[in-house]
Amino acid sequence: MRLITYRAAGASEDRLGLLDSKGEWVAPQEVLNLPYSDMNELIASMTEEERQQLSQRAEDESLFIVPADEIVLRAPIPYPKQDVICLGVNYLEHAREAARFEKDSFDIQSSYPVYFSKRVNEAAGHRQGIPAYEDIVDSLDYEAELAVIIGKDARNVREEDALDYIFGYTILNDMSARNLQTRHTQWYFGKSLDGFTPMGPAIVTKDEIMYPPKLKIQTLVNGELRQSSSTDLLIFDIGYVIHELSQGMTLKAGTIISTGTPKGVGMGFTPPRFLHKGDVIECKIEKLGTLVNQID
Amino acid sequence: MRLITYRAAGASEDRLGLLDSKGEWVAPQEVLNLPYSDMNELIASMTEEERQQLSQRAEDESLFIVPADEIVLRAPIPYPKQDVICLGVNYLEHAREAARFEKDSFDIQSSYPVYFSKRVNEAAGHRQGIPAYEDIVDSLDYEAELAVIIGKDARNVREEDALDYIFGYTILNDMSARNLQTRHTQWYFGKSLDGFTPMGPAIVTKDEIMYPPKLKIQTLVNGELRQSSSTDLLIFDIGYVIHELSQGMTLKAGTIISTGTPKGVGMGFTPPRFLHKGDVIECKIEKLGTLVNQID
Repeated sequence: MRLITYRAAGASEDRLGLLDSKGEWVAPQEVLNLPYSDMNELIASMTEEERQQLSQRAEDESLFIVPADEIVLRAPIPYPKQDVICLGVNYLEHAREAARFEKDSFDIQSSYPVYFSKRVNEAAGHRQGIPAYEDIVDSLDYEAELAVIIGKDARNVREEDALDYIFGYTILNDMSARNLQTRHTQWYFGKSLDGFTPMGPAIVTKDEIMYPPKLKIQTLVNGELRQSSSTDLLIFDIGYVIHELSQGMTLKAGTIISTGTPKGVGMGFTPPRFLHKGDVIECKIEKLGTLVNQID
Repeated sequence: MRLITYRAAGASEDRLGLLDSKGEWVAPQEVLNLPYSDMNELIASMTEEERQQLSQRAEDESLFIVPADEIVLRAPIPYPKQDVICLGVNYLEHAREAARFEKDSFDIQSSYPVYFSKRVNEAAGHRQGIPAYEDIVDSLDYEAELAVIIGKDARNVREEDALDYIFGYTILNDMSARNLQTRHTQWYFGKSLDGFTPMGPAIVTKDEIMYPPKLKIQTLVNGELRQSSSTDLLIFDIGYVIHELSQGMTLKAGTIISTGTPKGVGMGFTPPRFLHKGDVIECKIEKLGTLVNQID
């Protein structure tokens, strides 16, 4: 099931809906009788039985109501309840390219995951523009990532139970200002500018994805393939991360964990290939779709 | 004016109130006719005129209703809307002691502020216990800090205008698990365990504090003075920080920025003096009061 948040053309309020597997039609909230005010509430409240019923209805083409081109897709969770938790250097080949770019910031000799967070005042949706911040950013970069959405409060979760706490998955582009990320030592500010978290196009519920996810992940910039890997190549996998973090930090329903990016980001090239106004970034993950954004 | 969030003894709901300057009596929400559901709403909604009216009423002893010992103080903002933004190594002498403790993590040769964030599922109030996490933490530490509460959405703020965007101040104890903070490279996880953000006892509105704040800041552990400094010794001051962050990242009303800790934390001693069960930490800031918490 592919859950979306959208606005009908000209509307000012967000609504929930379902997208079909080709992204071609939308069944809106009213028709589906979804009693939730937004995606955060749906994630925290929907029971497994309700999910299954909805999932069956999503197969029913007679729900056709709104052609997808008459809506504006929003990020599936436009207003995350808390900052997004991110993993740094969580694919081996990306760890190497990052250390080559700037040894002081990225040459991490650790046998532990690197966790940081990203403030998200408002997540950007599919096809929404990303600000270039040309006055303060000289090294704008993309990072396609598999994001995991937590479905119920997770505390002291064993690795083998982690799947029980997952609601679904989406694509997250962890946009980064490399100059701010490195000069402030800790990465937070360079990752947290307004508009730096495109997400979507939909949340695909966990029942549709093999666990642990083994999905092709790719990024194209202006049509040129830059990143190409598979989500089973994570150094620290989803179960480990949910286990470790939940030992002391309750992961509340709606928490978004972005699992890191594979090699092929702009700073990984010699010379680096950063983003500029007009560039179009396509982040693709098998079964999750394609998230497209242009630098404004 | 000293704004608090509290629970009447035995109650399960938080209410807003005022504390007198000696912390001796409480004027509760109903008597004050405060039409806000919680402190986040008050901060985002209260006009300057309303603040002044309330401030005058706070001077009126006839508001006496609840003796302070019949309530449980909560953190003034028990559920921050977003993660707390923190400054690292923002007092010179603390920067030196931290680098001595672990060069790789803290010897920061940067002429820029270090920003990181701290997840706060629920902030701890005055006298609330702090979990020791003895199974995963071997180096529990305190950090008394002056925290700034943003009063209205701040975007592209000039240094000289920063005060307009401040609502008030409180004391924040940036509890840290040094082993987790350093082994994960980025500091996020080691700062974000449940219960690691005691705040309070009250928010003191900005009209009561000289700007920039020049306030004595101290920490006592089991009655022994450990930290003693002044909040005008920040390397990067409040105006600079609000200016820099707001260039790209909107600081929404209710945002909490913790300005860093002076020297004298546990890791600064040789050998280090970390916290253990039963230890009592008192963080004092002149005019803001004393925040007391015990390790559980």
